[in-house]
Amino acid sequence: MVTGKNYIGNSLSAEGTINFKTFNPKTNSENEFIYVEASDNEINTAVSLAKSAYKEFQNISGQRKSEFLNVIADEILALDSELIKMYCSETGLPEGRAIGERGRTVFQLRSFADLVKNGSWVEATIETAIPSREPLPRIDHRKMLVPLGPVVVFGASNFPFAYSTAGGDTASALAAGCPVIVKSHPMHAGTGELVSSAIIKAAKRTKMPNGVFSNLNSRGIEVGVKLVEHSAVKAVGFTGSITGGRALFDLANKRKEPIPVFAEMGSVNPVILLPEAAKQRAVELAKIYAGSITLGSGQFCTNPGLIIGIKGEALDNFTQNLANEIVKIEPTCMLHPNIIGNYERNKEKVLSQKGVNIKADYENKVESNYGRQVVLTVEGKTFMKNKTLHQEVFGPFSLIVQCEDKDQLVEIIRNLEGQLTGTILSDKEELNNNKEIANALQNRVGRLIYNGVPTGVEVCPSMQHGGPYPASTDSRFTAVGIHSIKRWVRPVTFQNWPDEMLPDELRNGNPLSILRFLNGEETRDKI
Amino acid sequence: MVTGKNYIGNSLSAEGTINFKTFNPKTNSENEFIYVEASDNEINTAVSLAKSAYKEFQNISGQRKSEFLNVIADEILALDSELIKMYCSETGLPEGRAIGERGRTVFQLRSFADLVKNGSWVEATIETAIPSREPLPRIDHRKMLVPLGPVVVFGASNFPFAYSTAGGDTASALAAGCPVIVKSHPMHAGTGELVSSAIIKAAKRTKMPNGVFSNLNSRGIEVGVKLVEHSAVKAVGFTGSITGGRALFDLANKRKEPIPVFAEMGSVNPVILLPEAAKQRAVELAKIYAGSITLGSGQFCTNPGLIIGIKGEALDNFTQNLANEIVKIEPTCMLHPNIIGNYERNKEKVLSQKGVNIKADYENKVESNYGRQVVLTVEGKTFMKNKTLHQEVFGPFSLIVQCEDKDQLVEIIRNLEGQLTGTILSDKEELNNNKEIANALQNRVGRLIYNGVPTGVEVCPSMQHGGPYPASTDSRFTAVGIHSIKRWVRPVTFQNWPDEMLPDELRNGNPLSILRFLNGEETRDKI
Repeated sequence: MVTGKNYIGNSLSAEGTINFKTFNPKTNSENEFIYVEASDNEINTAVSLAKSAYKEFQNISGQRKSEFLNVIADEILALDSELIKMYCSETGLPEGRAIGERGRTVFQLRSFADLVKNGSWVEATIETAIPSREPLPRIDHRKMLVPLGPVVVFGASNFPFAYSTAGGDTASALAAGCPVIVKSHPMHAGTGELVSSAIIKAAKRTKMPNGVFSNLNSRGIEVGVKLVEHSAVKAVGFTGSITGGRALFDLANKRKEPIPVFAEMGSVNPVILLPEAAKQRAVELAKIYAGSITLGSGQFCTNPGLIIGIKGEALDNFTQNLANEIVKIEPTCMLHPNIIGNYERNKEKVLSQKGVNIKADYENKVESNYGRQVVLTVEGKTFMKNKTLHQEVFGPFSLIVQCEDKDQLVEIIRNLEGQLTGTILSDKEELNNNKEIANALQNRVGRLIYNGVPTGVEVCPSMQHGGPYPASTDSRFTAVGIHSIKRWVRPVTFQNWPDEMLPDELRNGNPLSILRFLNGEETRDKI
Repeated sequence: MVTGKNYIGNSLSAEGTINFKTFNPKTNSENEFIYVEASDNEINTAVSLAKSAYKEFQNISGQRKSEFLNVIADEILALDSELIKMYCSETGLPEGRAIGERGRTVFQLRSFADLVKNGSWVEATIETAIPSREPLPRIDHRKMLVPLGPVVVFGASNFPFAYSTAGGDTASALAAGCPVIVKSHPMHAGTGELVSSAIIKAAKRTKMPNGVFSNLNSRGIEVGVKLVEHSAVKAVGFTGSITGGRALFDLANKRKEPIPVFAEMGSVNPVILLPEAAKQRAVELAKIYAGSITLGSGQFCTNPGLIIGIKGEALDNFTQNLANEIVKIEPTCMLHPNIIGNYERNKEKVLSQKGVNIKADYENKVESNYGRQVVLTVEGKTFMKNKTLHQEVFGPFSLIVQCEDKDQLVEIIRNLEGQLTGTILSDKEELNNNKEIANALQNRVGRLIYNGVPTGVEVCPSMQHGGPYPASTDSRFTAVGIHSIKRWVRPVTFQNWPDEMLPDELRNGNPLSILRFLNGEETRDKI
């Protein structure tokens, strides 16, 4: 089924001259298929098709978009074991993870299908005319959210299903009414092509316009750069490194017409361990955190890379327990030799800094591409001065910061970069007595967690996945949950517009029976 | 009452060495007071105070913010004729306009006071725990909007009240819980200082933290640049030229931590005149448009600077009627010699382009600083080729584009830059038969108007004031109406957070009785 070609709209195409293969880190060898990077002509054709598809797709009913999204989910499931095997061969991740992530992806698609079928998400807001108002009559105004235009989605290395081809960015953009062009991730081009084939089948089955979806292979950065610079592209979704995300953000802002880039980038996800919790629950917390740090070989954006406590017996005890627990866990395969190469380099960089001590380092022999977990410690004052220690080390890594006192702890929190999450481990009274810690942490993160682990991101409306820069480029939006649709839309007001020409969402008769804000009151009533 | 000093938080201060005066365009002479530009030290102090005020202000109740905003409105009204006189002396605008704009400003402040008193605007979204869920228990998640931090507001030349010191940007940012630093507009520094005195009085009366508001004088761009580059500033509001807005946008995006800039910039506000409307209502429409083009000497961002029709007798007839009507109107004083200087220069630039013809030009003698209105025509094909003709000419100016046919009209619309508004003048059947015109226009604007004029921006929830770039830097937000508060906030999720530590908006008991999304249903219920 895999051809190695690009989907330029509904057509498979391979005009380009640059070829590449994907890699199986578990067997430490290349996979069989050859992928062809998209040519300039293919890039331009994909964008032209998206632009032209947008004219039709932006006005397609929520009902039809809902069918499209549900059929994408069905077609992904129909790929069955072929897809799961491909995923495993391109990531080294176990089958259970692949099946779980596929479930998450299907759930996301169906959540957006429900959202747009219901239709109330467009935030219809109406003020009807008051001809008798003094000194001037009030004119009828009606506002709703409309799609921005073609969206480019960059697949993530660590989530080939849930944050790549048919992942959260694609699902939310299609739900909004934006055609999507995926810049496929080179590490899982085969998985990307199979998922793309499911999307194209769904587009054909539900009669979506050609160009509503394209999938472009690329080995390096060129295809992505050309897409972001293309004048017909109106927004970008990205999940990956700070370097990559910032580069795209800068490109997009240098355009004659700047466009939004939603880059979900790195995070060290600080965990604040308060003394009472360390004292009372050192053993339990150490076990939980050993699991969280090594989950998926630490290859999650919410991996707890930084644990901050106050010096003393309790913290020492927790540290020792964590060190003991973490080496009990068998290392697992990382995604790609490049990923483990970066992990080893970044780990060495931290280890070479003055004042950093190793508490645990998995020492047994491991297979190629397996990531050895490590736990390090450093004093608060050393951490504060050395920004290298604030950077994410992507992998099964955690640094424990030993603060002198609470003041230093608060000072450290205040000077952290923006984070996806921040966790407090404490008992309730202790949290209540340390409100300034919670307040300081809130200003640095998108999600606050009490007595839990940051790994595991629930897909629900109340989830905020995104945080102050550099956790993401725009902290005002989430990348997870139905509210992520808001990234791809803008409001348009219709003033004094004839009823028969209004979108259904704004018509007097409210034919879709959606919730609307009508003259200040929320209602499903007709006008 | 005017001191010429800066408000650095609650204190008047004038450490700087650069002085300037404002100008009365009506008397064509300088006003008496001397203003002192803020020094680097004053800028840094204002930002430090704002940063420190934010720690308290971000957690102040909606009730108290509401009182603050209402007392600002009261204190502005209490300045009475002193304020109105100052406004008129710094703008050349008539007293009626000053009083009307003050009313709009007070209304905006009170609208935000109502919004935050009610409290439901934070979009509280809650999924409660389901311990029995398989395969994993669902953890309690609660999300709400929280303020971004200190906001810098740039006053607008053409709205000294409604889009300057205590205007829409300031009112919405304070309502959100963000301290505000105003970069006062040099053309109306006295009006700015008086309004600032009202805000500071209100801050003291309602016991807001020192630094919740500062007002900095500046003659040129330096103060603004330093503010936007300051690491403690978290967002920027701007109303003005494309050049100014884009420069601030670029500065903000080059920061180590980029911040959002909401710049509401230029717009030519295209008006599409369809043949039936031109044929049936040439006289009436010409009168209405003569008024709209010259309103406030054309110094509105929604001024109709471009009228696009299809060649023929009906369009000629409308053009002749508009030419006749517009010269009947007495020119009025523009805001400042710089503004009229730019107007004359930009007008000459358009007039010097090949194929541009004058249809009406007010020829009687006028006083210094009065703007002479002008109506010009150009053929569609000439307009398409010459982007100079697409630029805004700020003043009582309108260019009529004569298209060959409907296809050319649609092509011209598709190639327009982003606009705040787009208007269609037609009869209903004609609009219904020309859906592609409405669709094309919708993709280029923030607000669509049927059979009306773009001037006059209703302050209501259903208003979208903002549009695709360069109408504004972020089309996803409005600068007018209560939804403009969304520019200054971001969502934060509390996961498994103890009830007694949650913000009131998210607590089980719903003590504020706000509307919340609870497990997918909208309700005011307790949990």
